[in-house]
Amino acid sequence: MLKAQYTERGPVPQAVIQAVPFDRPVLAPGQALVAVLAAPINPSDVLTLTGQYGMLPPLPAVGGSEGVGRVVELGPDTQGPAVGQTVLLPAGCGTWATHVVVPAARLLPLPAGADPKQLAMLTVNPPTASLLLSDFADLQPGDWVIQNGANSGVGSYVVQLAKLRGFKTVSIVRRESAVAGVKAQGGDVVLVDGDDLAERVKAATGGAAIKLGIDAVGGKATMRLAATLAESAAIVNYGALSGEPCIVSPRELVFRDVTLKGFWLARWFRTTPQPKQLALLTELAGLIATGKLSTPIQATYDVSQIKEAVAAAAAGERQGKILIVPTEG
Amino acid sequence: MLKAQYTERGPVPQAVIQAVPFDRPVLAPGQALVAVLAAPINPSDVLTLTGQYGMLPPLPAVGGSEGVGRVVELGPDTQGPAVGQTVLLPAGCGTWATHVVVPAARLLPLPAGADPKQLAMLTVNPPTASLLLSDFADLQPGDWVIQNGANSGVGSYVVQLAKLRGFKTVSIVRRESAVAGVKAQGGDVVLVDGDDLAERVKAATGGAAIKLGIDAVGGKATMRLAATLAESAAIVNYGALSGEPCIVSPRELVFRDVTLKGFWLARWFRTTPQPKQLALLTELAGLIATGKLSTPIQATYDVSQIKEAVAAAAAGERQGKILIVPTEG
Repeated sequence: MLKAQYTERGPVPQAVIQAVPFDRPVLAPGQALVAVLAAPINPSDVLTLTGQYGMLPPLPAVGGSEGVGRVVELGPDTQGPAVGQTVLLPAGCGTWATHVVVPAARLLPLPAGADPKQLAMLTVNPPTASLLLSDFADLQPGDWVIQNGANSGVGSYVVQLAKLRGFKTVSIVRRESAVAGVKAQGGDVVLVDGDDLAERVKAATGGAAIKLGIDAVGGKATMRLAATLAESAAIVNYGALSGEPCIVSPRELVFRDVTLKGFWLARWFRTTPQPKQLALLTELAGLIATGKLSTPIQATYDVSQIKEAVAAAAAGERQGKILIVPTEG
Repeated sequence: MLKAQYTERGPVPQAVIQAVPFDRPVLAPGQALVAVLAAPINPSDVLTLTGQYGMLPPLPAVGGSEGVGRVVELGPDTQGPAVGQTVLLPAGCGTWATHVVVPAARLLPLPAGADPKQLAMLTVNPPTASLLLSDFADLQPGDWVIQNGANSGVGSYVVQLAKLRGFKTVSIVRRESAVAGVKAQGGDVVLVDGDDLAERVKAATGGAAIKLGIDAVGGKATMRLAATLAESAAIVNYGALSGEPCIVSPRELVFRDVTLKGFWLARWFRTTPQPKQLALLTELAGLIATGKLSTPIQATYDVSQIKEAVAAAAAGERQGKILIVPTEG
């Protein structure tokens, strides 16, 4: 059995993590041994390795905050999903491993027959996209929303969920080569970022009032997004792909009443009642299981290839997500 | 009779404005002729001359958005304040003049015996300060608020109104020489801006949770202000003394749930019912008339000196407001 462990944090994420073997554990009552089927590398995982994330686990730690597995064994006198059942692993349990030991009560049984790689990405990006669309503006069918970083994992779910809810999307990407992929996922208008963005958005949408801006980039990209919005609209930031702080002109804030907020899924999980969390995850799991929600995958790696996998996830210009898919187990 | 008029806008505000004579007007029914006693030059007035404000009057225009005068004459069959009454001029009527003609019904009688120079600043800065303190956080007596640009006109009213309402203030200024003035107005903690601001604020307040940030500066000053705030607090921006857009780290927005909003008094006047506006102005007029609210005045100028006056108002490092106080009339 293998796990991808780090004992320190540092600026080069692949330098601090390595695959280390461990013995098959003896289970205590209440525990389950789960063989990991797939676990993604999210931007937040990379920031956890570099120490830039808002919440850092004690060291040493195993990387990976979400994933899907199959139950291998239950501890003595333990209630839980049957051996062989496909389950969602609890958030933050260190999923970049061939096997994990977790409380059996925290395993969520998943629909059978669905692609475990897509289901492995259920906990982080789809709820983020769903809540970005629901919690920062009162959007009605036919309303427009704009996002940048649209070819990211969250970005692809935003496009698909917006379409399912009847919203129209303007998707901003940072390079021409990313346009086709976002269009293929159902983006209504897809544009490359640039200084005249507001004018191009206006032309492409027929001057529609855009009610919500979703910012994953920061820097001047935030300011360009703000300029495309209707008066009194909100921008919600959830990432900083540019590595720069958000920049917004007082002109937008003061004269056009635009508001800039942030969204952090970890806070939502911390402050939202369990049944409401479960309802959202169940809804999204159903959409993924039936193929209505998916995101492109660029490559999969074994746990033994963790350094290559993290390096690939940390690099820009990807065509999709990087996943750990253990070959053992 | 003289008025300070501009027929074009340009980057050097004192270059576009000049004092021009006009004949005593013949009043129509409903009109009043008012001799201006005092009218301030606000930052928004300067931005109106340079074309950078959010709302620009058609040209040619007379400068000045607020002021106080004495009724000289009422038009035929006109109801209104008696000749000789001190009145507040309606917002935006072009107050940098020896005399203005305005609808008599829009004149607000003011308490007798109060300093017209202080009352002349009633319409713009005191309501801004009051609404910044009331509309963006649920502050209770004993709560802390932080502001930068604290030695501005609005800043001085924020300090005084916060004290009257039982709030504690951290005031940030950009130079050591401004500290004493803000302390003299009742600032609890007054600090010079700098990179270690959050730590110095924490030390000076005993680690108090700061519920609201008021930003008049923009640029990295916004980011430094955000870092001093309690989790889930709001920053409200109402100016850009730095000339730079607001910068806020996603770290504050996402991980600490800080929100950045804007406030524009002109929007408040546009969207707020008249009785509520009148109630606020009446409350603030009472505080000014009784000397509970005042702001330092650096210098006064005649209408004929409008170019010097605007240049003085547009310069940085002032010790107080610049006012037009006509010597004629």
